[in-house]
Amino acid sequence: MWVPGGRRVLEPVGVLPQAAWRLDAEPEIAPDEVRVRVERLNLDAASFRQLREAHGDRVRDEVLRIVAARGKMHNPVTGSGGMLIGVVEEVGPEATLRVRPGDRIATLVSLTLTPLRLADGLARWDGRSEQVPCDGHAILHGRTVAAVLPDDLDPRLALAVLDVCGAPALTARVVARYSRPTVAVLGGSGKSGSLSLVAAKGAGAVRTVAVCPDEAEAARVRGLADEVVVADARDPAAVAGRVRADVTVVCVDVPGCEHAAILATADGGTVIFFSMATSFSAAALGAEGLAADVTLLIGNGYLPGHAEMALGLVRATPGLRELFAARLRADCAS
Amino acid sequence: MWVPGGRRVLEPVGVLPQAAWRLDAEPEIAPDEVRVRVERLNLDAASFRQLREAHGDRVRDEVLRIVAARGKMHNPVTGSGGMLIGVVEEVGPEATLRVRPGDRIATLVSLTLTPLRLADGLARWDGRSEQVPCDGHAILHGRTVAAVLPDDLDPRLALAVLDVCGAPALTARVVARYSRPTVAVLGGSGKSGSLSLVAAKGAGAVRTVAVCPDEAEAARVRGLADEVVVADARDPAAVAGRVRADVTVVCVDVPGCEHAAILATADGGTVIFFSMATSFSAAALGAEGLAADVTLLIGNGYLPGHAEMALGLVRATPGLRELFAARLRADCAS
Repeated sequence: MWVPGGRRVLEPVGVLPQAAWRLDAEPEIAPDEVRVRVERLNLDAASFRQLREAHGDRVRDEVLRIVAARGKMHNPVTGSGGMLIGVVEEVGPEATLRVRPGDRIATLVSLTLTPLRLADGLARWDGRSEQVPCDGHAILHGRTVAAVLPDDLDPRLALAVLDVCGAPALTARVVARYSRPTVAVLGGSGKSGSLSLVAAKGAGAVRTVAVCPDEAEAARVRGLADEVVVADARDPAAVAGRVRADVTVVCVDVPGCEHAAILATADGGTVIFFSMATSFSAAALGAEGLAADVTLLIGNGYLPGHAEMALGLVRATPGLRELFAARLRADCAS
Repeated sequence: MWVPGGRRVLEPVGVLPQAAWRLDAEPEIAPDEVRVRVERLNLDAASFRQLREAHGDRVRDEVLRIVAARGKMHNPVTGSGGMLIGVVEEVGPEATLRVRPGDRIATLVSLTLTPLRLADGLARWDGRSEQVPCDGHAILHGRTVAAVLPDDLDPRLALAVLDVCGAPALTARVVARYSRPTVAVLGGSGKSGSLSLVAAKGAGAVRTVAVCPDEAEAARVRGLADEVVVADARDPAAVAGRVRADVTVVCVDVPGCEHAAILATADGGTVIFFSMATSFSAAALGAEGLAADVTLLIGNGYLPGHAEMALGLVRATPGLRELFAARLRADCAS
């Protein structure tokens, strides 16, 4: 049976590209592939945090080492990647991806499954931001999801929105199943968190609650949530003492938030885990141990129409757009 | 705020017992607690497999070391535990758990959150079975779920059923949401897998498919599934080439089955992950990378009525009861 992207898997043989240890990033494309000239990587927040903490100022060397060794930017510690923007360079005659040479696109699938080779030694990256300017190439295939970048938004803003566009789409779908639910978002002042808050309101949430780690973060999200609570999302007692939700969305990129989310969710409710720092066993056993009849969802990054929905929310919500713009300014200044 | 079992957490302070590195297993109980004289542990399959592979014949020493160090049987590698049976020894005056001294019970919450102390050095365990005869004590609290063992079933059989009783309950709930679905179970010949197959049929599955690693396993489950497929659940092409399901249930206790499950599931379908060997990021990024619009569920081990439902399925299905009995005989003989 044909496996999407399977041709590029070098080892172990037979797995999908995301599960592979090493991909083939040769620039020559097969008839159904597309080659992209890469301009910028947007590292996954959990991955960037781990790399910074483990490697400090040598983070650039580590990213180069990973990409050279694996043929993709797949952090072996966090298991996560990120996404990229670039310009379509060559489209194979049998490619089903709807792009043309010259299109500036963002990939909406993870870097963990995208063949990538870097050509510039990341000379323009100072290692202090998740956004990594670079030169190199990447290979896409028919089941890759890519969005042509809109003309009306700063490409870096669009990239940051598209990176997390699965979160608002799935949040809206889940919220719409409940009648007048309360929705809590742990990490509500972040990118996926703030988008999820706005999406929840649009999908019928009667009340939205943003949980933030400190007053500075709380200030960012006021106006986008009905209520803002300052609490450590890793502290079940602190969170559940102040928040009771039908749908709880976890967007905090640090480990250990599973139990607070479960304890804050009413029986019959749903927890959606978008953080790549989520522990499967902590979530499963935590709910069991609390005798909590809650649905636990792994945040699938793909839903049909997710990119357009997220960009639409940012266009329609000045506060959201300003939050993203401020985060980008902070990234560049830090 | 009160945190269930929080009093027994020694480090780190403030987390729930399951997240704790170390619990206090002192035998003296608080007014709302229950002390159980432990007769037998049933180690989680993924945990037992890891311990056997890593420690071989010294597995007994390793279990003793873990319980002494952590105050609970919480495998630090797999993050999983198991469950226990024992006899209620003392019930605090404010305990809400409905048990009386002398009741023989099974805990339906994980050993990863149950304070435990062993008193016999596991002298009666040969280290070759997940079922560990022992003497010691454990502490339960009001939000622990425990079932009084039924009189009509061998206690070891009942324990094996109760250990995985969350799987058939959640499978049935999900299957009932679809109209005439096909349901595939990866690892269909195992304990949680076979129960899930029978539960799926009872909940309206028009067709059930068991995926097994070899002919010997396939033979165990014939009669309990409409179709039996021999394929490696870690091989996406092998599985998705032969199985197409609306609901896919993952009960294989080895890592690397996420992508096969996702690829075998139709758009709009659901994958339920019960295996503790599941990788959160492999599941989330795999679905994104395949542009698969499937719901990904973390198998919560608790649903109201799950114990009674699973025991009822075993009582009503001779083939299921025989499969469990054969597994117990094999465990004892190996």
